[in-house]
Amino acid sequence: MSDSEHDWLRPEEETESETIIDARTAQNNPEVADVVAKIASLRQSIDNVDTAIVSLLAERFKYTSQVGVLKARAGFAPADYQREHAQIERLHRIADEAGLDPEIAEMYREFVVTEAKRRHKRIAENGGDPGVLDVFA
Amino acid sequence: MSDSEHDWLRPEEETESETIIDARTAQNNPEVADVVAKIASLRQSIDNVDTAIVSLLAERFKYTSQVGVLKARAGFAPADYQREHAQIERLHRIADEAGLDPEIAEMYREFVVTEAKRRHKRIAENGGDPGVLDVFA
Repeated sequence: MSDSEHDWLRPEEETESETIIDARTAQNNPEVADVVAKIASLRQSIDNVDTAIVSLLAERFKYTSQVGVLKARAGFAPADYQREHAQIERLHRIADEAGLDPEIAEMYREFVVTEAKRRHKRIAENGGDPGVLDVFA
Repeated sequence: MSDSEHDWLRPEEETESETIIDARTAQNNPEVADVVAKIASLRQSIDNVDTAIVSLLAERFKYTSQVGVLKARAGFAPADYQREHAQIERLHRIADEAGLDPEIAEMYREFVVTEAKRRHKRIAENGGDPGVLDVFA
């Protein structure tokens, strides 16, 4: 492997106590080389998961922007606390079943709901003009 | 539909100017009933997307906790800015292709990377004990 492929094993500046691993060290130490290979393989899986999640987020915001346009046209409020309460309980249960810390599922929910609400308000301010869908609303 | 199924259409208290939609209004107004049905259908799709994303997040944190254990045992730093830089560029490109505001992909990345780092540090503090995996680390 090239040195550049090993650059990501160099620790950040702040952590002086950390071991510096470079290509030569890895080559001379089979144990380190094995760890390097395992981390590279896990990172490929993490990247694949991120590709799937970002693609799903794209679909989610297309759906929520449609909801935003419908609500704005009908004069419904952008926020809906009954809906949020149901989402919190639902995602908490799904996280438990999936073996995910429910705290992380709640952080995810707050992130997407906050963003969706921000965009719903923008759509409402624009009179529910579907044109705003073109700007990722 | 039951009244409870229409509760979620009641706007929040803060927005007094919003139209209040209840079961009777929806029944008496076919246009409103149509909007209500469309929103309910979109919300089912949004819930399905959330189920998929939360399940993928569970897998992602299982992978990152394994990376955390490997790094802690080998004495690598929890953070890795070369890796983060590559992730930023990659997710930006994927978001563009998927039609997602890259700003949202970046918010997603910051959310998962910050959480993963917090958990890596915890694993390192525990001497890379895989036992911490049992607490969603």
